[in-house]
Amino acid sequence: MIVVMKMHASEAEIEGVLARIRELGFAPHLSRGQERTIIGLVGDDRQVADAGVLAALPGVAECIRVLKPFKLASRDFTPESTVVEVGEASNAVAVGARRIVIAAGPCAVESWEQLEEVAEAAKTVGVRLLRGGAFKPRTSPYSFQGLGEEGLKLLARVREVTGLPVVTEVMTPEAVPLVERYADCLQIGTRNMQNFNLLQACGRAKKPVLLKRGLAATIEEFLMAAEYILASGNRNVILCERGVRTFERATRNTLDLSAVPLLKQWSHLPVIVDPSHGTGMSSLVPPMARAAIACGADGLLIEVHPHPERALSDGPQSLTPKLLAETLVGVAAVATAVGRTL
Amino acid sequence: MIVVMKMHASEAEIEGVLARIRELGFAPHLSRGQERTIIGLVGDDRQVADAGVLAALPGVAECIRVLKPFKLASRDFTPESTVVEVGEASNAVAVGARRIVIAAGPCAVESWEQLEEVAEAAKTVGVRLLRGGAFKPRTSPYSFQGLGEEGLKLLARVREVTGLPVVTEVMTPEAVPLVERYADCLQIGTRNMQNFNLLQACGRAKKPVLLKRGLAATIEEFLMAAEYILASGNRNVILCERGVRTFERATRNTLDLSAVPLLKQWSHLPVIVDPSHGTGMSSLVPPMARAAIACGADGLLIEVHPHPERALSDGPQSLTPKLLAETLVGVAAVATAVGRTL
Amino acid sequence: MIVVMKMHASEAEIEGVLARIRELGFAPHLSRGQERTIIGLVGDDRQVADAGVLAALPGVAECIRVLKPFKLASRDFTPESTVVEVGEASNAVAVGARRIVIAAGPCAVESWEQLEEVAEAAKTVGVRLLRGGAFKPRTSPYSFQGLGEEGLKLLARVREVTGLPVVTEVMTPEAVPLVERYADCLQIGTRNMQNFNLLQACGRAKKPVLLKRGLAATIEEFLMAAEYILASGNRNVILCERGVRTFERATRNTLDLSAVPLLKQWSHLPVIVDPSHGTGMSSLVPPMARAAIACGADGLLIEVHPHPERALSDGPQSLTPKLLAETLVGVAAVATAVGRTL
Amino acid sequence: MIVVMKMHASEAEIEGVLARIRELGFAPHLSRGQERTIIGLVGDDRQVADAGVLAALPGVAECIRVLKPFKLASRDFTPESTVVEVGEASNAVAVGARRIVIAAGPCAVESWEQLEEVAEAAKTVGVRLLRGGAFKPRTSPYSFQGLGEEGLKLLARVREVTGLPVVTEVMTPEAVPLVERYADCLQIGTRNMQNFNLLQACGRAKKPVLLKRGLAATIEEFLMAAEYILASGNRNVILCERGVRTFERATRNTLDLSAVPLLKQWSHLPVIVDPSHGTGMSSLVPPMARAAIACGADGLLIEVHPHPERALSDGPQSLTPKLLAETLVGVAAVATAVGRTL
Repeated sequence: MIVVMKMHASEAEIEGVLARIRELGFAPHLSRGQERTIIGLVGDDRQVADAGVLAALPGVAECIRVLKPFKLASRDFTPESTVVEVGEASNAVAVGARRIVIAAGPCAVESWEQLEEVAEAAKTVGVRLLRGGAFKPRTSPYSFQGLGEEGLKLLARVREVTGLPVVTEVMTPEAVPLVERYADCLQIGTRNMQNFNLLQACGRAKKPVLLKRGLAATIEEFLMAAEYILASGNRNVILCERGVRTFERATRNTLDLSAVPLLKQWSHLPVIVDPSHGTGMSSLVPPMARAAIACGADGLLIEVHPHPERALSDGPQSLTPKLLAETLVGVAAVATAVGRTL
Repeated sequence: MIVVMKMHASEAEIEGVLARIRELGFAPHLSRGQERTIIGLVGDDRQVADAGVLAALPGVAECIRVLKPFKLASRDFTPESTVVEVGEASNAVAVGARRIVIAAGPCAVESWEQLEEVAEAAKTVGVRLLRGGAFKPRTSPYSFQGLGEEGLKLLARVREVTGLPVVTEVMTPEAVPLVERYADCLQIGTRNMQNFNLLQACGRAKKPVLLKRGLAATIEEFLMAAEYILASGNRNVILCERGVRTFERATRNTLDLSAVPLLKQWSHLPVIVDPSHGTGMSSLVPPMARAAIACGADGLLIEVHPHPERALSDGPQSLTPKLLAETLVGVAAVATAVGRTL
Repeated sequence: MIVVMKMHASEAEIEGVLARIRELGFAPHLSRGQERTIIGLVGDDRQVADAGVLAALPGVAECIRVLKPFKLASRDFTPESTVVEVGEASNAVAVGARRIVIAAGPCAVESWEQLEEVAEAAKTVGVRLLRGGAFKPRTSPYSFQGLGEEGLKLLARVREVTGLPVVTEVMTPEAVPLVERYADCLQIGTRNMQNFNLLQACGRAKKPVLLKRGLAATIEEFLMAAEYILASGNRNVILCERGVRTFERATRNTLDLSAVPLLKQWSHLPVIVDPSHGTGMSSLVPPMARAAIACGADGLLIEVHPHPERALSDGPQSLTPKLLAETLVGVAAVATAVGRTL
Repeated sequence: MIVVMKMHASEAEIEGVLARIRELGFAPHLSRGQERTIIGLVGDDRQVADAGVLAALPGVAECIRVLKPFKLASRDFTPESTVVEVGEASNAVAVGARRIVIAAGPCAVESWEQLEEVAEAAKTVGVRLLRGGAFKPRTSPYSFQGLGEEGLKLLARVREVTGLPVVTEVMTPEAVPLVERYADCLQIGTRNMQNFNLLQACGRAKKPVLLKRGLAATIEEFLMAAEYILASGNRNVILCERGVRTFERATRNTLDLSAVPLLKQWSHLPVIVDPSHGTGMSSLVPPMARAAIACGADGLLIEVHPHPERALSDGPQSLTPKLLAETLVGVAAVATAVGRTL
């Protein structure tokens, strides 16, 4: 951390900062400039991550953090890319390997018929993970909230039939054991990215975690959320870029694809992209799916519904199985172009 | 809801939309313009709030919601302003009445000494509610996470001494009964504004709820979160504007004070403002506290710490008791200017 | 346009709106719902685009525009994609055709040596348009502001040598004739996207215009800026997505690639992408260049400098000629994958 | 500036940075931490404000600026608050003094009758500056663009009648002499805040300048725009907060009132607030006008129209003269509460 003193900070104020830094167990490093005095703090200041500790001292103008606050998630400390295995050994899917992974399925599990139709169709066109919501976070209390445990059972049953490992959302810490019993991968939704108790509960789970970026989370905060899971003992975290909130409302969110290569630079964790929530429009899913792979994503999360116009949620952004098949043809071509396979 | 058809939508597509609207139990209302056909949906379409139901139909360009999606939170249906009572009858504090309410205290409860010093000082200068965190949501897993139940006990104890009702944060649905046992008002933090299970759990609680606006929540989403609590049975909800995330990083957040009069127009619920988190800088707290009252806030939530430079969190935005006293002098003058009292 | 009346709007208020609509020359279309009365306005309301005309009437809750406000830029009225020719007939480059176009060059023209070195190297690796700034908009008055007319002369001279048509920025209406004398394409920078006098001056020019999206411009506002140029008589407009401003500061801007397919849906104009300004980091330029082509961009605008660490501006986001060559190998592969060529 | 090296930066890379810093004329200040080497740059680095100069060197992770980039606008160098005089000596109005200043008038000058009616009414209720647009920046080329010079003449004529000095917008550098001939204060609109040629042209003018904050401008960029004017020779700059663009669309913009006290801390220039554009809704103007004064604004810019429902632009946010009178009663009370007068 670097402490920038105010322009006319007194000697006593400078001394106060030096003393506080020593008290915190660090060595201060003083540098007097023409206009400002700057004090560096030598050592691993991640424990003092809350920059406020020094910022509230008299005479301090600003505290600037120099080290990134995440460590377990950082590529600086784990240079080799992590590959996360999802599913039982026999049919496990490797996320983060050369072969890209398509996870697809309906926004919400509605019925056995709907789920099986989607799962079978998806498998045929190369989908390797099945996604589907049993517990649904909805903006309105009056909207369909998911089938709950019944939905989980349908997901487990369709896995029996298709062999596709299952990803589904968990919304509360106490539901983690239940969801873990049925699912192969626990999804943490965008609105829960900083639900710290949930992060820790998933960190204590045995199944891998698919962590979606928060609606207004910086890339650094996203990696700090992953750090919570990693620090709780679970090393199998998949990051998912799914669009952030900006002033632009023509699309449901603004898909921040630059985050993909940046996350890969900063972190060793695999990164996938959700172009369905990222755009909110089915016509934009195919081009953004291709773009995601072109810039280095390890996989895609795509909403599919046999009859989008009858979906209980997210119809406008869902592909039909037929459109999914067409989309994946384009994705496969781009995957080859960047030296990967589908 | 209004359905705007694409420019060259076919008759069959128009018929499809009309049929689907009737199937949903509504009467369609057709209007053929020069360029576009528009179809209105007559009736209370809040049940169909998920605009997607019609947007995924062939030939549809756009669906536009006309009614606001909240009802219990809306002033249209409850014209009279709600006053929320916090605390036992003997020392209850009315939020939303002519007399404005100051809630103050430390970001995190750190010790009995710290808490008592703040509480006594705060009470002296006109503070009527004590705030303090026992469970702390922190961006980093390595930061101080609060004292937990021990902190709740200290809060209850200081209430005994000072008579000030206590507001404190609850972070998970299962912790609601515990927190409710000690506190007079349950706070839902900004990162949990769309933690729907927590909203529902607080909706089933007997104590009032202080709901903070989410970091990137629109005013409509904020009121929908309140709607979740109201729809679960708890009519005592206090809204708290605490700053939103924007491109501007000179302040910790961007305090959206225009939300105060707008929330008062759209809703009957009381509205308070947190200038501490809203700005992140103690020097900005006094002017923004005055501004909040000037534009109609029913109260303020202010962070106070006896020694901000030693605070375990949020030091830079905490006032000393002395600065709080000065701040409230200014606030009282503005309160008088707008026909209210402190 | 649709006018939503307040819940308890009086008959007189409804009559007032109907009368005003008729006075404006439109036919009103009344629809009384259970809660609200809604009044449609039949006809081309783009002339009344300023929704305010009706919104300020008593009893009106909201005015909702139904038609997009742009017409000349709209694909609804010009279904076929526009191809813009840049340069003299002999060496003209077609932007918007199957073959994608790479425009590259230094942020600022600094000297003949720098410019020639970049231009020759760029041409060798498949660049077909040369970009370079003679007039530079800089945040600080103390930064290098460009060589001015001297820079224009160098650009024209390097075109003689290489045959590459030249794109360069024009910053004021009165400079348009000067820049037009030397350049083959006039660039309007992001900070000038709503400099309406400049848009009109470029609309009266004979050379094509490359219009960059404003820092905080919606896609609709972007197309309205293009509409200004088109309405002033110049039909040769190239749109350029170059990143928007969001809360994320890890990248210089947030490159909104979803805008590319959406602009292609809404408009017939060609769309290119600037991954250099979009990210601000040279290490992100290759992946985002590939992603831009994967989602349908017609070309790329890339900053190249022989010695980025000595550049007078934008060094951190500039590629060396060697890195540009490597980048274009990847771009060519993706172009092939999406059925295009480099 | 502080240069943070990458984790495993080589000695040669560190040497390269040290050499470049010396070459730029600064003394480097080396500090080797446990994980990272950090190099400070001692001296006034505002000339090297473009951090890129060092960021593109091999081995550099990040460059962090320590000094604010503005100097003439900074309170560090000009501790005393600036008071700007608008108008001829006889009827000059002091902006930035204890007495707050209300500038009001129509968004666009439409006719002599409209202008005179507003001006007379405004004067009666305590308005001391008349605002009105002759040149109007409009999002759509099909909207009313203002009366041009004819509007300027009407403004000058109404000043003769009322004695109120006149503020009006100038949109291009070449129009500055024309506008200066008629007006007492040149307004630079939000879309032109980074029209650097216009800033410089106004910097060479003799009349004071009212500079509106850009739609997506940080406070630092706002002050850098003021720095352009100051550096061109004009010391009479009034800053105007008018709302920024965020994800919230319930209000036209998000009025960033925290910017007011922060601008007053960082700069010596007077600060006024425009609650009309800041909110876009006339019902929010009175509360936000009070809030602006409560947090320290030196004045207000308010849109007034005799018949908002007939205004050619911005009707929904315009007050009638009667509402303006009521608003100013509330403003006056708050002004007194904060030790100022109207």
